[in-house]
Amino acid sequence: MRPTQRRLSSLPPTIRSLLSSRRSTLPSISSTTHLETTPCVNEPVEVNGWIKSVRAHKNVAFLEVSDGTTGENVQAVLKGKNKAEGLSIGASAKLRGRLEQSRGRGQDVELVVEDAQVLGTCDAEAYPIQKKSLPASVLRDNAHLRFRTSQTAAVMRIRDALARDWHDWFESHDFVHVHTPILTGSDCEGAGEVFTIVDHPAPSSPTSPQPFFPHPVHLTVSAQLHLEAPTHALSRTYTLSPSFRAEPSLTSRHLSEFYMLEAEVAWQNDLDGLLSIVEEGVKNVVGNILNGEKRGKRLRGDLSTVARSLHEVDDLESVTGRGQEVADTLYHLRQVVDKPFTRITYTSALELLSSLHANSPSTISPPPSWGQGISTDHEKLLAAHFNGPVFVTRYPKELKPFYMLPTPSTIKNEKTEASRGPTVECFDLLFPHWGEMAGGSLREHRLTELTHVIEEMGMKKEEYGWYLDLRKYGSVPHGGWGMGWDRWVGWVTGMGNVRDVVPYARWKGHCKY
Amino acid sequence: MRPTQRRLSSLPPTIRSLLSSRRSTLPSISSTTHLETTPCVNEPVEVNGWIKSVRAHKNVAFLEVSDGTTGENVQAVLKGKNKAEGLSIGASAKLRGRLEQSRGRGQDVELVVEDAQVLGTCDAEAYPIQKKSLPASVLRDNAHLRFRTSQTAAVMRIRDALARDWHDWFESHDFVHVHTPILTGSDCEGAGEVFTIVDHPAPSSPTSPQPFFPHPVHLTVSAQLHLEAPTHALSRTYTLSPSFRAEPSLTSRHLSEFYMLEAEVAWQNDLDGLLSIVEEGVKNVVGNILNGEKRGKRLRGDLSTVARSLHEVDDLESVTGRGQEVADTLYHLRQVVDKPFTRITYTSALELLSSLHANSPSTISPPPSWGQGISTDHEKLLAAHFNGPVFVTRYPKELKPFYMLPTPSTIKNEKTEASRGPTVECFDLLFPHWGEMAGGSLREHRLTELTHVIEEMGMKKEEYGWYLDLRKYGSVPHGGWGMGWDRWVGWVTGMGNVRDVVPYARWKGHCKY
Repeated sequence: MRPTQRRLSSLPPTIRSLLSSRRSTLPSISSTTHLETTPCVNEPVEVNGWIKSVRAHKNVAFLEVSDGTTGENVQAVLKGKNKAEGLSIGASAKLRGRLEQSRGRGQDVELVVEDAQVLGTCDAEAYPIQKKSLPASVLRDNAHLRFRTSQTAAVMRIRDALARDWHDWFESHDFVHVHTPILTGSDCEGAGEVFTIVDHPAPSSPTSPQPFFPHPVHLTVSAQLHLEAPTHALSRTYTLSPSFRAEPSLTSRHLSEFYMLEAEVAWQNDLDGLLSIVEEGVKNVVGNILNGEKRGKRLRGDLSTVARSLHEVDDLESVTGRGQEVADTLYHLRQVVDKPFTRITYTSALELLSSLHANSPSTISPPPSWGQGISTDHEKLLAAHFNGPVFVTRYPKELKPFYMLPTPSTIKNEKTEASRGPTVECFDLLFPHWGEMAGGSLREHRLTELTHVIEEMGMKKEEYGWYLDLRKYGSVPHGGWGMGWDRWVGWVTGMGNVRDVVPYARWKGHCKY
Repeated sequence: MRPTQRRLSSLPPTIRSLLSSRRSTLPSISSTTHLETTPCVNEPVEVNGWIKSVRAHKNVAFLEVSDGTTGENVQAVLKGKNKAEGLSIGASAKLRGRLEQSRGRGQDVELVVEDAQVLGTCDAEAYPIQKKSLPASVLRDNAHLRFRTSQTAAVMRIRDALARDWHDWFESHDFVHVHTPILTGSDCEGAGEVFTIVDHPAPSSPTSPQPFFPHPVHLTVSAQLHLEAPTHALSRTYTLSPSFRAEPSLTSRHLSEFYMLEAEVAWQNDLDGLLSIVEEGVKNVVGNILNGEKRGKRLRGDLSTVARSLHEVDDLESVTGRGQEVADTLYHLRQVVDKPFTRITYTSALELLSSLHANSPSTISPPPSWGQGISTDHEKLLAAHFNGPVFVTRYPKELKPFYMLPTPSTIKNEKTEASRGPTVECFDLLFPHWGEMAGGSLREHRLTELTHVIEEMGMKKEEYGWYLDLRKYGSVPHGGWGMGWDRWVGWVTGMGNVRDVVPYARWKGHCKY
């Protein structure tokens, strides 16, 4: 009955805020990306962090300390014997002292420790991630500890910062972020490779109670259909939310649980216009990194950390030449902003692949026949040929889902296209060394035509009543696109395998934690 | 083989951007929240939107047009006979004309239409949501069309803006947003009311293939355990992501699928400090609305729309007195920022309830016995008594999950508390007229004690090996909290029922779409 009321205490400073508050606002005279620091700041500070490395000498010990809020470590200097006791790699500690200008190489300031308190010890012998570079498979099996490597910590910060930059871009264009559902009675792609839910482990037991839902419920494979409804009221919507596929794919680009960035835009009746929106979004986010705008500076620091870990070197300069590290880390990003994305139809892409194959029959496989899909190898080849992102548009109708808008007859196709079969107003966006990064289309917005295609494909019309309603009442031409978020993070970071850019990866046979 | 490359076209203006670009930057001399507009802007514009209302006279028709990017409609004026043909409520249209200063009441500018094109018709007789106010249950059954009401559209924009403000607050304090998994082998709360997944509808059929995962996999009930691991590397983490409960609760505060905002903070060993972080976050977001900072102005406009719809009036001034509408809509928000949140222990709360009951035995039910939970009615009563949010702290250990830190013996409890049983360092945050809004605790960070409690409670220790590892290697005192996102949006908007603040609601027996 004696309620206490106290003044708000804010969160204590992190290493990130400590280091950035130590930065001078004076213009840097150095040409590197490192900022100058104010010399010899001498106020008492407290640093909480984990010990990343220890160099102990007779009367002095140097510790690298990280709290994970930035890729930059604080170097802590402990003078006098025994001061570093218990401060082994992986241990957590509270260090009190003063920040001073460092005379050593590699850092601007160092923490001269006056009082060190070990909070959590770490048995260096038993600690699974003490070594500098462990195989990715070992780290995946230790996902709960993997966050402690400089690589995964940087990837997590990058993943976060990239999402914020995309959210900002969407907001600046009046898109509303919508929490589309995970549980659904629909199967958007009609693929069948869905996870089904039950509310108890043994659904078919004779004594089991009434099921939780009166019909089968799946985990969503795409938010698109669910986004189209609010798009018919809010005009521009998007979501960054989880999707699921029960596919047994064991490639470096597939997960059973993955995040998708999906957007829908009303009043859009032009495929080229849709492509421009996608291109603008991609270039905006990548441009921020290159220009150091928004979160770009932080992202560059973390990308450099990832690149160092991938090359297994402490210092990228040692392998690439002084001053080249940033340029190298960002090469794939520059490829994206340097020029307009190439736009090419599916049919023209096949003709191009055919001529590339004719020139190098021993290294380049024959193109698919018209009507077949384009393989990942061929996708990479197309992007490599144009040395940058490529939109491949107007795929054969048979290759794509029911909701895509047919290419109108008013669009002048190359002669060959017209004769080979109907196409739809869609695109795949291919990236160099990666393949498909995003895909999208204009949607069939005409009630009669959509009803016809649903019937034609033998789909259950009654399940799509609500989807048809969107066309029945105040329909609008619209289009949208989706990007595998983990693929995007994998591409930006250069990590290569989507299992290494998600906190906890799930794929066939693997759902640890 | 003729790739086309074209200049980026950006997205066309929305009604939101059109109206805001028409605002004058001159200081307003009016005391209302409406901004002044520049008089008589006369350039040609194109407006895409849905018709919200039609007033047709002999030679002129007035349309209210919305594209959902803002709660403000554009009034379109069509002069001459037959010009409004097909422009019925719910229809979509492309209108070309000029924005002119309006002489009518209710809008600053109006669109004088020169060319109107109906894109999608709408049969006024059949359209399910043409009427002004429909029962919430009817709208829930038409969730795909519900977005088109001014109420739901405003709620969706508010939901989005609130998330952005929270994301900004977390970012400014160096928190990293983490995509915690949906599929999990763990059951955080040990509640048992989980959804289990199967990768095909008939898992027990004798011919069924090998299961997708080698052990039972559930949908997450809380991200907390999964957040604690990265917190031991990044120091501050949070997530806004879906959680699931297979509870049959049919209340206005429960969904089977819901978003949770959950955060974890390392280097935190003080319950009062944790409370201050929560209080600071809540006050920051609510304060932005009240001060008109960040997205506050937009939020106020949309909150006003929701309030008008809840009161079923066009003009709140008509019921509350001129100029009072904003103050009334925001009253519950002011209650939160006006003073420090009350902090009271569970034991003291029970004593207070006991004395309130003694004073009004006919209207207030007796308090629970020590060791029992506090009912929602009593929670509301406590918040009402203090006329604002209340942190109730240090609940009996038996009421709370295994991972909470026991109240240390160094903390001087009231005599009565000490004698009644052990408590834990936790809190529930209660809001007036709502009850529990958030909950959290310090976590048990000591390996020996956590191992002991897991064994003591008969939990499978081998399933918590990874969780114990966090305490084995470089453990740190830490704490965290979670807030039901749909409840938060329900409270801010005043909507009352969480089913009406999510795009597609799922609860027992209901998983339409």
